Amino acid sequence: MKLHFDDFIYGSIDGAVTTFAIIAGVVGASLSPGIILILGFANLFADGFSMAAANYQAAKARNQFIEMKRKQEEWEIDNLEEQEKEEIREIYKKKGFKDELLEEVVRIITSRRKVWVDTMMKEELGLIEDEKNPLESSVSTFIGFNLIGLIPLIPFMIFILMKIDANSEAFVYSTISVMASFFLVGMIKGKIVKKPKIRSGFYTLIIGGIASLVAYYVGYGLKILIQ
Amino acid sequence: MKLHFDDFIYGSIDGAVTTFAIIAGVVGASLSPGIILILGFANLFADGFSMAAANYQAAKARNQFIEMKRKQEEWEIDNLEEQEKEEIREIYKKKGFKDELLEEVVRIITSRRKVWVDTMMKEELGLIEDEKNPLESSVSTFIGFNLIGLIPLIPFMIFILMKIDANSEAFVYSTISVMASFFLVGMIKGKIVKKPKIRSGFYTLIIGGIASLVAYYVGYGLKILIQ
Repeated sequence: MKLHFDDFIYGSIDGAVTTFAIIAGVVGASLSPGIILILGFANLFADGFSMAAANYQAAKARNQFIEMKRKQEEWEIDNLEEQEKEEIREIYKKKGFKDELLEEVVRIITSRRKVWVDTMMKEELGLIEDEKNPLESSVSTFIGFNLIGLIPLIPFMIFILMKIDANSEAFVYSTISVMASFFLVGMIKGKIVKKPKIRSGFYTLIIGGIASLVAYYVGYGLKILIQ
Repeated sequence: MKLHFDDFIYGSIDGAVTTFAIIAGVVGASLSPGIILILGFANLFADGFSMAAANYQAAKARNQFIEMKRKQEEWEIDNLEEQEKEEIREIYKKKGFKDELLEEVVRIITSRRKVWVDTMMKEELGLIEDEKNPLESSVSTFIGFNLIGLIPLIPFMIFILMKIDANSEAFVYSTISVMASFFLVGMIKGKIVKKPKIRSGFYTLIIGGIASLVAYYVGYGLKILIQ
């Protein structure tokens, strides 16, 4: 089992954002801090699971789609040989080949089944096999989601365990820690996609911040509306 | 602005799962139904926004990564001509070309810059340009998330607006409507990836169901633990 860093990062951003959005919603609606833990953890497991499952399905569906297309091309090569040869001819004509040289190229490409199919996959369909394991990809998402999504809950856990009744103070600690996580995760993401790290850190921080603000004011507004 | 169906579907599954997970968590912890609306809507906007933003960033990062790689290949072709020609030679040697024909192929491929770079991108790096618009992709995610994620909230909205105090009845309606949405969305997804539709519907239903059950029991357990 190998952890995939990019899936880990996407999971962790979503984990931190949604958990903190719940916290902000609860605080905005001035509900009790116990609800934060209840719904925070319910979201961590449920949303983390569903995101990992969606990731697994998407990766598997892509693999299956490519496999299906490959089988289809193989069938066409076996049953519509001339038509498929003509497609190879068109592909290489576009690359600038012509006359005898073009015919020679078509002959070589179509003389080996694997090379023929690979060429059709890449050039005709624009498909390249991805060797990513769907299970590893989804486990990485889940771990990222739960590990980083846990961070904004920690201050509330400590305050409740120590029976300190200081909801707004816990919220301050939670905000600081989640903002730090946003920034850090954004920086790591920047490193992966080879973009400026500081800018990428701020980017993720801003997006997470907006999402949390939205949650806070929706919670705040609905509380007034309902009561 | 064009809606992308696959992004819409992934957004809608996540929207339905996380919204219903919050509902299940609230009901499991036997909190008041007003909290469902407050946190349900806070989650819809905040999580929907963050998912759309993550989708936008991922799509843009991929485009930028491919663009960077293309520029890099172009630089190498301009500055390390012989080395890059040798790479083309190796690629076509693997396809079964040799001797004079191989040299002719290398000459033709490397005589047009675009064909040369395209070949390096596909064959050496395994990268194919994706013409998906990041903004359209993220807007599709957001709409799917909010539209389908709203469904399990509707029964609670109606009951609260009509001032009917029947939380468990609203939960039954919510459960039925969200299960129907899971199944329907799963079927549409099956249609897109060309898999059996009924099976795909049940698959999504099961994953959504497990996520909701987890949320319900985490809510239930934590409520007992905290009180």
